Amino acid sequence: MPEIAFVNGEFMDLSDARVSVEDRGFQFGDGVYEVVRCYHGVPFALEEHLRRLERSASGIELGIPEETRRLGELAVEALRRSQIAEAVLYMQVTRGWAPRNHAFPEAAKPTVVITVRPAKPAPPDRAALGVSVITVPDERWLRCDIKSTDLLPNVMAKQKAVRAGAFEAVMIRDGAYVTEGASTNVFAVKDDAVYTAPEGPRILSGITRAIVLGLAREHGMPVVEEFFTPEFLARADEAFITSTTLEVVPCVRVDGRPMGDGRPGPLTHVLASAYSAEVTKRTA
Amino acid sequence: MPEIAFVNGEFMDLSDARVSVEDRGFQFGDGVYEVVRCYHGVPFALEEHLRRLERSASGIELGIPEETRRLGELAVEALRRSQIAEAVLYMQVTRGWAPRNHAFPEAAKPTVVITVRPAKPAPPDRAALGVSVITVPDERWLRCDIKSTDLLPNVMAKQKAVRAGAFEAVMIRDGAYVTEGASTNVFAVKDDAVYTAPEGPRILSGITRAIVLGLAREHGMPVVEEFFTPEFLARADEAFITSTTLEVVPCVRVDGRPMGDGRPGPLTHVLASAYSAEVTKRTA
Repeated sequence: MPEIAFVNGEFMDLSDARVSVEDRGFQFGDGVYEVVRCYHGVPFALEEHLRRLERSASGIELGIPEETRRLGELAVEALRRSQIAEAVLYMQVTRGWAPRNHAFPEAAKPTVVITVRPAKPAPPDRAALGVSVITVPDERWLRCDIKSTDLLPNVMAKQKAVRAGAFEAVMIRDGAYVTEGASTNVFAVKDDAVYTAPEGPRILSGITRAIVLGLAREHGMPVVEEFFTPEFLARADEAFITSTTLEVVPCVRVDGRPMGDGRPGPLTHVLASAYSAEVTKRTA
Repeated sequence: MPEIAFVNGEFMDLSDARVSVEDRGFQFGDGVYEVVRCYHGVPFALEEHLRRLERSASGIELGIPEETRRLGELAVEALRRSQIAEAVLYMQVTRGWAPRNHAFPEAAKPTVVITVRPAKPAPPDRAALGVSVITVPDERWLRCDIKSTDLLPNVMAKQKAVRAGAFEAVMIRDGAYVTEGASTNVFAVKDDAVYTAPEGPRILSGITRAIVLGLAREHGMPVVEEFFTPEFLARADEAFITSTTLEVVPCVRVDGRPMGDGRPGPLTHVLASAYSAEVTKRTA
């Protein structure tokens, strides 16, 4: 199972995959990306990820080259070559190589990178025991709806969680409201309704988020897409986080204090199971 | 005059300089950088730039490898090899290569990149005629004092300026106060005093800014390091921007309206000349 990369038109071993030190992705964070989970060789929700990549690219006025329209085919081809069944497919498009200068280069060709690596299996007790989260200030820029590689604030937040022995950092904007996690969307359950921050410039419109909200509605759960306070989260009946690679993960402690009864909640369990079933259905 | 790069211990032609697509600088903007102007083969204010690089690295908890302590020597060696007299020296340190994961990698070795390119000569009429600027919302993260490569908001702001036929975008935080330019610090002159935003998390502590403020004081000009409004800037007697590569550039129009009498101001001229003299003195 080789780890495969595709860089600007060529497939290669991931360990050989390089870009120029003057690539704008390296010098300016001038690019966008997607992460797709592949189950038994089938990319899940690939179309949704490609559409979001196009939206992100459009948000930074990055013209998508013909190559990127073919990105789906290329991703599938990279996956096939890797022979990795349970894989994480990573796609990144940057504004390309150019001598360093802030403004857009006039003639640069976007850099297209795809990598395939094995997915890390979730620890078997994560779903049963849940995870701890901490809250941290949301210090990110004001266009978090654009999935760019300017991820340093996310990195610093995630590292704070790791240092605190927690699994995720939940970000609080202006000391007032929960936006999302360092690499996840955040949900609270209160009186059988599912709460999460609304789409807009302060959060990433998560693919898993959208699927889980759809499943919640299918299961008759009221869905409230409104900002809520850290206090609301701390006093919720249940809480969970979602992401492409993590799926649905119950949260049982926030900033060291138990949430709900300190165990994964029943609605969280319903949604996690429904998500797994959706994955099975779509990748059958 | 070859364009030279140093990447992780080796000197090479800039066109051969590559990093892994999984370098955290490429995937996470997880790194810091400096730009140093070299005059007739001598790097200007190199020590100040190296100290700021250390501060930025410390701000993101990036341990500086032995190699980076030697960064000054390596930079001088890269410059010597390039034989470029009027050069822009670029230094970038990232958290290194690691399989993609937000939290700090346990065993990654920081990536050190140095590049040397010829400085672009300023158009001869820039100092005489001044430049136009536009104002744009400051959408950056909340730690602008850290000189990281998460520069997408700066890129987008600069591109707006280019599209508007302006030279620089002046960023307005919360619709209320001027922070800095997309790649410059911003100054206003009013009643013979020099105003600029204070050091802190909302601006980069510019090397040129500090030198110019020192020169202003030496010339008996009162210096006010306080935030000012876009209206204050628009009604200033004079305005100018500073950066390592641009030095001191007079601004004569903001958002299409003339500033002061629409020509570079006398105090700006004094400071630009004093800066040139400082460069000559220090690089003699």
